[in-house]
Amino acid sequence: MGLNRLAHRSEWGAGILGGMNILITGGCGFLGARLARTLLSQGSLSIAGAPAQAIESITLADRAPPPADLAADQRVRFAGGDLNEQIAAGSLPAKGTDAVFHLAAAVSGECEADFDLGMHSNLDATRALLDACRALGTKPTFVFASSLAVFGNLPGQPLPELIEDFTLPTPQSSYGIQKFIGEQLVADFTRKGFVRGRSVRLMTVSVRPGKPNGAASSFLSGMIREPLAGQSAACPVPPETLVALSSPARTIDGIIRAARATDTEWGPPTGVNLPSLRITVGEMAQALERVAGKAATELLDWTPDPAILRLVKTWPGNVASARARALGLQADTEFESVVRDYVRENPGAIKLPLR
Amino acid sequence: MGLNRLAHRSEWGAGILGGMNILITGGCGFLGARLARTLLSQGSLSIAGAPAQAIESITLADRAPPPADLAADQRVRFAGGDLNEQIAAGSLPAKGTDAVFHLAAAVSGECEADFDLGMHSNLDATRALLDACRALGTKPTFVFASSLAVFGNLPGQPLPELIEDFTLPTPQSSYGIQKFIGEQLVADFTRKGFVRGRSVRLMTVSVRPGKPNGAASSFLSGMIREPLAGQSAACPVPPETLVALSSPARTIDGIIRAARATDTEWGPPTGVNLPSLRITVGEMAQALERVAGKAATELLDWTPDPAILRLVKTWPGNVASARARALGLQADTEFESVVRDYVRENPGAIKLPLR
Repeated sequence: MGLNRLAHRSEWGAGILGGMNILITGGCGFLGARLARTLLSQGSLSIAGAPAQAIESITLADRAPPPADLAADQRVRFAGGDLNEQIAAGSLPAKGTDAVFHLAAAVSGECEADFDLGMHSNLDATRALLDACRALGTKPTFVFASSLAVFGNLPGQPLPELIEDFTLPTPQSSYGIQKFIGEQLVADFTRKGFVRGRSVRLMTVSVRPGKPNGAASSFLSGMIREPLAGQSAACPVPPETLVALSSPARTIDGIIRAARATDTEWGPPTGVNLPSLRITVGEMAQALERVAGKAATELLDWTPDPAILRLVKTWPGNVASARARALGLQADTEFESVVRDYVRENPGAIKLPLR
Repeated sequence: MGLNRLAHRSEWGAGILGGMNILITGGCGFLGARLARTLLSQGSLSIAGAPAQAIESITLADRAPPPADLAADQRVRFAGGDLNEQIAAGSLPAKGTDAVFHLAAAVSGECEADFDLGMHSNLDATRALLDACRALGTKPTFVFASSLAVFGNLPGQPLPELIEDFTLPTPQSSYGIQKFIGEQLVADFTRKGFVRGRSVRLMTVSVRPGKPNGAASSFLSGMIREPLAGQSAACPVPPETLVALSSPARTIDGIIRAARATDTEWGPPTGVNLPSLRITVGEMAQALERVAGKAATELLDWTPDPAILRLVKTWPGNVASARARALGLQADTEFESVVRDYVRENPGAIKLPLR
């Protein structure tokens, strides 16, 4: 990484010789912060098969400030503000950026309610970031967080029983369309040699800590998180609804593995399905009950919400991930241990007695 | 179409009561002008299953001026200049536009040579035009000329033997990526009710009259047109190369049928393959020879061009078109009559004696 690295270090003023400089958009969100913590605790990263290098800097681009533990790390920079504006101003990505993890996005429910917001936050930002990476001239590794939501049941043209890496996506939400367009841009910028693109299709991440967000899938974390905190939670879809879940830990594994993979290991620059646990919403509730008893599941409100049901029904539950598995990635094997991981990692958020 | 029509007529100053107002982008190009002539000679158009209405105006948006016959027609308006600029200025599409045929595009070879040009002319213009149609608030019919070029052989992941409407496109050119992104935008703007979208995937149109253009497929017309004019022509790919062709007449049939189809007839808002004639480049040369003898085929230069071959090899030759056929569209059944149609329609361009 030679000359660019040196030029970059002199700008930043400090750093480890030969170090790795990383940008995470949406870096102060739940997944972005967890990715940053994982990378910082590893201390080094190998990208695209090159020898591992010590992590010199991680820039967290976000509107919200970083959590205190990340803010305290000398290797962490915070680029606060609107992503499109920062890219347009030329401040992101910094010269010398070796790897970009593009996680920032408006979520599915927001995009469905505010079409222009979604186009701006998802399509425009992804394109601008790719253009800025191309302008670096150094072919950075670009991991794009795509989504299971690229798959949707076309009216009159149902999805196949099993969704594979090369199944035709026919998104049924603006969010899914924007993510699928992002995959196309990543593929072409990669084919042209502008970046080393890796589009990973994230499954529904559960259990997310914190507050509900505007994602239609938000209840798939809330139905575990809120009862554990002694609060009621909505289960707005029938218990037999099949979903494709991934724990936070497995999701971060997939994102990092995408950056590490050589071009040959990765294969074509099209989207790769991350592994998922195939489970019904009813089985999720049963796992909750095994962890926290009936006191927890009695807090679930199964009143259907037609708007959420309409979106969720278009998402597939049965998703194969041959490419990710060939990279050594694994799905969670059952959900109860995912719930127990959440309990262990978020002790302050647990108010019910556990079994 | 009531109030908008009246408002529109008063702006334009003249028109037939209850008439149909049409915008054709790329309207002075070969296909755009042929589409305009066909519509004008029909005199009326039914869109999306509504009763046919007399054509009140056809606006041709293009950089180049319209051919004399179109310029002379009282129903034809010319919107000259850059398409993006005209849309940004709010002059296109005019209020009261009922149907848009979006044919304007930078061609494949140009887009491969000048990435930014392709993104601007194809992606930005398509998105801006869709946004402007949405702003009309009248859900106009929007026929988008997509392309066979959305299909490409991924390295290590060859296309299936037979390409169908729902085969996963994996474009191997920036042009193909931009067209496929256009399909995604059309699908989502349609799902949202902003337009009544119809993405038609045009096959390689041959025989095109006039001059070669920057399309990698340009030789598939040139190898017929130039010898008939007594000039040599390049056949830069091996004779056994399979291609999916459509005559100009069949291509225009497909574009108009897309506008006429009801939402139910059309089906999902994903791309529809127009019917194609499956033929090798060698068989095309044989058809030329049947029309104009060895004097014609001796003018063909079979020196391979690796750049063109690389693009053409990623395009499929064997393309099914179930959705288009269900709409009653047919492929050309053989190529010799397509060559004879070209000869009949372009008498001034024929210099060799015919057989």
